[in-house]
Amino acid sequence: MAESAEHVQSLARGLAVIRAFGSDTPELTLSDVAKSTGLTRAAARRFLLTLVDLGYVRTDGKLFALTPRVLELGYSYLSSLSLPEVADPHLERLVAEVHESASVAVLDGPDVVYVARVATSRIMRVSINIGTRFPAYCTSMGRALLAGLDDEALDTYLSGTELRALTPRTITSPMVLRAELDKVRRQGWVLVDQELEEGLRSLAAPIRDRGGRTIAAINISSHASRTTAQSVRRDLLPPLLATAARIEADLEATRTGLRA
Amino acid sequence: MAESAEHVQSLARGLAVIRAFGSDTPELTLSDVAKSTGLTRAAARRFLLTLVDLGYVRTDGKLFALTPRVLELGYSYLSSLSLPEVADPHLERLVAEVHESASVAVLDGPDVVYVARVATSRIMRVSINIGTRFPAYCTSMGRALLAGLDDEALDTYLSGTELRALTPRTITSPMVLRAELDKVRRQGWVLVDQELEEGLRSLAAPIRDRGGRTIAAINISSHASRTTAQSVRRDLLPPLLATAARIEADLEATRTGLRA
Repeated sequence: MAESAEHVQSLARGLAVIRAFGSDTPELTLSDVAKSTGLTRAAARRFLLTLVDLGYVRTDGKLFALTPRVLELGYSYLSSLSLPEVADPHLERLVAEVHESASVAVLDGPDVVYVARVATSRIMRVSINIGTRFPAYCTSMGRALLAGLDDEALDTYLSGTELRALTPRTITSPMVLRAELDKVRRQGWVLVDQELEEGLRSLAAPIRDRGGRTIAAINISSHASRTTAQSVRRDLLPPLLATAARIEADLEATRTGLRA
Repeated sequence: MAESAEHVQSLARGLAVIRAFGSDTPELTLSDVAKSTGLTRAAARRFLLTLVDLGYVRTDGKLFALTPRVLELGYSYLSSLSLPEVADPHLERLVAEVHESASVAVLDGPDVVYVARVATSRIMRVSINIGTRFPAYCTSMGRALLAGLDDEALDTYLSGTELRALTPRTITSPMVLRAELDKVRRQGWVLVDQELEEGLRSLAAPIRDRGGRTIAAINISSHASRTTAQSVRRDLLPPLLATAARIEADLEATRTGLRA
């Protein structure tokens, strides 16, 4: 048991060292890593040198930085998922048609996580990459995914999540959110208008497996100044739903081996 | 020292377990993981359950699969690099202009690794994502990056790398490759014509820092049937070089804090 506990700890700590690096901290000293992970300097040093040995971190002796090899880890996940590969060409076709950015995300705990994306011009303050997370409750893909949860899972989500107002329009009442999710279930799509960020309007639909279970969501996002709620529904909803259906059909074909 | 060695081993093994999952193996049993990593079943179980605890792996009790949280690890690298964020809008503009896919890659050992990409339609047999690797010697971005190595680093690369023929056109002679890289150094760009895959023609240029050191490469790839070597040079080279220059200027501005 001692060995087991130690394994847990070493792996957990090593992964925490990787996560210590980020946009504001691309290069870290030994002391920086010790401070941000809560490890002793000696332990931080062992983990960093282990990661250098494994090719995930490089150092000039003083500063440490991640190497591109770290991408292999996230890539293991992406390549284990047939979804991004199946969705990509359909997203490309959709973006070529509507000239707005389109993405596919999955639910991970209380967050949506982007797993495929074709962008046009950047409209949000933060740049969105594969792996970017946003809270589910105030995003279009999040609502499409939450609407696919069964009642028990949704109760658990709502009781464990604080609905913070990210803009003056964000729904922060669990009761109002629940009513909105009921509507999403009935209509099969959702428009979220500037609840995550001012100026951002986003339309999403679920992607379901053969059994009707929601496994992902697809969206089109656009700047609020370029669209109205009506134009979004008229111009963007039909191609969005058509694309979701094509992805569902391809996923099914992939699974049953019908695809070349 | 014993503790240090153990730490190395636990972290290395845990990361190997993550890498055991992939496109052909999205779901693995305990035995599968033990087999592919060389761990005992007991050790594989400890690592898998550790990763389940940490939220990187999910299980139904029998089958194990990665969760989207694994993307956080690769995302640490991407967000630690200002390059993808700086390059993305420029790639988008380039792709809108030339209607072909464009990418940015860095060198990692003998491979190029994609760190930014805007795709149009898929032309290769494999799908390319952030994190995808190809051998440097037979790709346009790889040659742009190899041309930026100093003589010593290039000697090390050539003495340690087998130049395999991936198509009948692949350069497999170190001497011919060296001459080609000299040409790339002189002209500042490179066209690779169907050396990685039949039908794929790709044009690349280096992205350099202020000191003239090559830090990345940018390319435009197109299907050989849609272009000729002449049309690539005439139509694609000017926008490619202009885009590389814009990315270099933005990177410099980012570093010196001139960018908003």
